[in-house]
Amino acid sequence: MPPPDAQRIRPDAQLTRPEAETLIARALQSAGTAPDNAHSVARALVAAEIDGQKGHGFSRVASYAAQVASGKVAGHARPTSTRHGARLDVDAANGFAFPAVDLAIAELIRMAPETGVAMAAIRRSHHCGQLGAHVERLAEAGLAALMVANTPQAMAPWGGNRALFGTNPIAFAAPRPGQPPLVIDLSLSKVARGKVMAASKAGQPIPEGWALDPEGRPTTDPAQGLKGTMVPAGDAKGAALALVVEILAALVTGANRSDEASSFFDADGPPPGVGQMILAFDLSHAPGFGERLEGLISAILAQDGTRLPGSRRLTARDATHVTVPGHLMEEVDALIR
Amino acid sequence: MPPPDAQRIRPDAQLTRPEAETLIARALQSAGTAPDNAHSVARALVAAEIDGQKGHGFSRVASYAAQVASGKVAGHARPTSTRHGARLDVDAANGFAFPAVDLAIAELIRMAPETGVAMAAIRRSHHCGQLGAHVERLAEAGLAALMVANTPQAMAPWGGNRALFGTNPIAFAAPRPGQPPLVIDLSLSKVARGKVMAASKAGQPIPEGWALDPEGRPTTDPAQGLKGTMVPAGDAKGAALALVVEILAALVTGANRSDEASSFFDADGPPPGVGQMILAFDLSHAPGFGERLEGLISAILAQDGTRLPGSRRLTARDATHVTVPGHLMEEVDALIR
Repeated sequence: MPPPDAQRIRPDAQLTRPEAETLIARALQSAGTAPDNAHSVARALVAAEIDGQKGHGFSRVASYAAQVASGKVAGHARPTSTRHGARLDVDAANGFAFPAVDLAIAELIRMAPETGVAMAAIRRSHHCGQLGAHVERLAEAGLAALMVANTPQAMAPWGGNRALFGTNPIAFAAPRPGQPPLVIDLSLSKVARGKVMAASKAGQPIPEGWALDPEGRPTTDPAQGLKGTMVPAGDAKGAALALVVEILAALVTGANRSDEASSFFDADGPPPGVGQMILAFDLSHAPGFGERLEGLISAILAQDGTRLPGSRRLTARDATHVTVPGHLMEEVDALIR
Repeated sequence: MPPPDAQRIRPDAQLTRPEAETLIARALQSAGTAPDNAHSVARALVAAEIDGQKGHGFSRVASYAAQVASGKVAGHARPTSTRHGARLDVDAANGFAFPAVDLAIAELIRMAPETGVAMAAIRRSHHCGQLGAHVERLAEAGLAALMVANTPQAMAPWGGNRALFGTNPIAFAAPRPGQPPLVIDLSLSKVARGKVMAASKAGQPIPEGWALDPEGRPTTDPAQGLKGTMVPAGDAKGAALALVVEILAALVTGANRSDEASSFFDADGPPPGVGQMILAFDLSHAPGFGERLEGLISAILAQDGTRLPGSRRLTARDATHVTVPGHLMEEVDALIR
């Protein structure tokens, strides 16, 4: 006999990518998101889930919907852009980040061949998920691309114990002839804050060295880690790079600083208003780029014990279905009116 | 009575900055460097020495001169540039890096206000010293600037044990109203390779964790470390960032890869032919940049135990004289014919 609660446990669902996107878009639309914005967000969340970036996937749906419902995210926002030479200023208008990133990518693909290098400066933005997926789209269009983002305060300046910088991710992609692009995507904390968030949600401890408690002491309690600060990758150097990203993503773009930004998770307070910067590099003046990159990649993989950064993301891409955990099916279904 | 060798030990010399620059320029000219190139190099080496970056200062003079004498560095090279939109391609023509960087800086200061963002891609280049000094000059002209460089192979890809990437430094600077610019300058190895080089020259051991021997084992012997690999800052993340820098500084510019580049130190072999990329950001579309940066800096310094990256470089700048160690006076004097 099954245990008494078994009937109430929703089984995991196997959905095709379009089914999963439609499901999430419907949930976001029910909360008050414009259909095209909802589709942009849904596509990004499903792609992150498939790429194994679960902290940027389905786990965000309920929180995103709540932020639209409360007005923290403007569900009907229309991103707009203004161009000055090789610089594109994008106002995400306190909506979701993904429609603004979509606009930036489309414009950068037009601009970069003309200007050699082109930059998108996105302000009044929100959580932009896995940065690697955005630069990958630029690489699929034949460009190299570098992206930085600031995120709500999570890391202390080196030597301090209060959060000031976000985990401030950096991503890079470059096209490979006949293969998916090379994609590098990392946060400047030792581990992504999403992993601590996921552990907190799952009630699991975190390894020591990931986070510090509010008094600056190492902790294995994800709740204490979320209240405290994340440890920067590479210690002082990671903290210094977080400052660089902060200045590029927030101050050069005109976005909120990490310590001015509200949470990406809860539905309270003003919009986070963070920023993203994307740089796109045309490769027509980089002689033999594709062949030379293959040579570099071969030299990496010729050494035992190495792997190409980002290669794990490709493993699940050929699957016809994506697994949606039962508890998330519950959450999403509850959102759909 | 002094010991028998005392007469042969040259005392340290106290020189003014112009005296030190003239001394070094004469040494380089004696080896076959054009006067303007020699002056550009001398200015950079003296500035590095004053800023406490001894690995990029006077310790380089004898090695630079030997490379000009052997023809590894083209002492009379004239850097040239070609502009495509917001991209400036600079051919350092296998001369010293500094004249090419000077050209790039002068052009970027003209380009960035027009294009919003501008890039210099320097190829057929050489050791460019402390990157922070270069981006600082752009910040003194009111621009934010990011620079990356590749350097001869020194770090293994993550999981491997053979050198493939350089220590691949990153520098960033931003202007501060009424104050010297904020400057961040770091190599992606846990410590700069110049420190291991300096320890080797001085016959000092290095701390464990800086470098691995050729078999991939931790070592405290700087000679073994120089034969082996440098440990990346932040482990896998530092190695991934070194790959990003490698692609930007070498492949996007059209320069030699780190594993294709000859040594910056000895006079043998072909020119290293490495690359540098400099990005300059006009700040006229970054509202309130100066004031907002001061707010961020205040928030950093408000925490006990913090300091601003790059602040140590300012301590010796007001001194009227620079100390040139006696053994270097010997070396330099021997070069001047």
